[in-house]
Amino acid sequence: MLSISREEIQGMERLYRNNFINSISGFKSSNLIGTVSEKGIYNVAVFSSVTHFGSNPAVLGFVTRPTTVPRNTYKNIKDIGYYTINHVNSQIVEQAHQTSAKYEEEIDEFEICGFTKELSGFGGVPYVKESHIQIGMKFEEEYKIAINDTILVLGSIQEIKLKENLIKTDGFIDLNEADTTSINGLDAYLSPKKIARFNYARPNQPTTQINEYLK
Amino acid sequence: MLSISREEIQGMERLYRNNFINSISGFKSSNLIGTVSEKGIYNVAVFSSVTHFGSNPAVLGFVTRPTTVPRNTYKNIKDIGYYTINHVNSQIVEQAHQTSAKYEEEIDEFEICGFTKELSGFGGVPYVKESHIQIGMKFEEEYKIAINDTILVLGSIQEIKLKENLIKTDGFIDLNEADTTSINGLDAYLSPKKIARFNYARPNQPTTQINEYLK
Repeated sequence: MLSISREEIQGMERLYRNNFINSISGFKSSNLIGTVSEKGIYNVAVFSSVTHFGSNPAVLGFVTRPTTVPRNTYKNIKDIGYYTINHVNSQIVEQAHQTSAKYEEEIDEFEICGFTKELSGFGGVPYVKESHIQIGMKFEEEYKIAINDTILVLGSIQEIKLKENLIKTDGFIDLNEADTTSINGLDAYLSPKKIARFNYARPNQPTTQINEYLK
Repeated sequence: MLSISREEIQGMERLYRNNFINSISGFKSSNLIGTVSEKGIYNVAVFSSVTHFGSNPAVLGFVTRPTTVPRNTYKNIKDIGYYTINHVNSQIVEQAHQTSAKYEEEIDEFEICGFTKELSGFGGVPYVKESHIQIGMKFEEEYKIAINDTILVLGSIQEIKLKENLIKTDGFIDLNEADTTSINGLDAYLSPKKIARFNYARPNQPTTQINEYLK
């Protein structure tokens, strides 16, 4: 095993380090965040930092840097109070990646990247019609992260739209069946394939599989 | 498409809602956090919330609830100031899931779950030897999340251990080659397979693939 120190990481060339450190946390979620500005311009941008924060209330977070590309996303969320999160499936990875280009503020990124808007009932924020799992979000709170000036944005789930057969009898959503993708680093998209699903783990009892998951 | 409202989510039975909402953010990272207590008891626990926060300095975060299972992890990190993050590969998903059982505080979870400790040079915190990508972390800061009393724990990367051939010429780490897994919901493990890697996206220019990624 190669060992790389903190100092060696700091000494890396900037793009090399961005690729390296963006890969190191493991696989990431792959989502499009849909927003609308006060002027009515629609925005969609790919994010790999959407993270589960709690189930009751149902809360999701994501990390943003107000001074970089997806700044329109952050500004629109603060102005309108609502946004959407839409899973990227394998059929739309190319368009999804294209949303990371630095488009001017007045460009409708749905149109230019080839996505179809479906307007929600709250704030008129746009869902991505091509996505198989769509989540309507309300802005709740934000935390400015002292160590690197990023912002953690937290929202509560207002609505979930998906095909009924993706939900299993115990509430589990089969993301493999939904064709949801995962992100490696800044720019690689993958399709996760099932290994196993396990029953609730208990001390002094071996882990057992939920066999119907693999059927 | 089925539409499920906030009120319907709130009305779900607790375990059903946990499965449902834990699946909705998309695929999650799959990591074992290794710690040691002040009394010298080793602890290892699986986490699906490890998230990239920044590359310079290199910062990773994870979410915990101090009152639930992995509370030893949080206490140990606060007491010792260091911890490790270790990728779960497909060969160790069963043992990784077993770490989520509620073991008593005096149990060495490495031993009981079948993992090998490799002690780091900082705080003596244990790496998981069976993991192909191991990260040494220093505690930096924490944020108490008001909406649901969870805690976001942020740490800086001190050391990264991995096989040299996993790092590509531009710094990208091929997590597919590393056999890193991904988590769906609370208890399903998947092996992500490559779809595409894309070049830096620019307005007025179509997205192009990095072809060597698929070789």
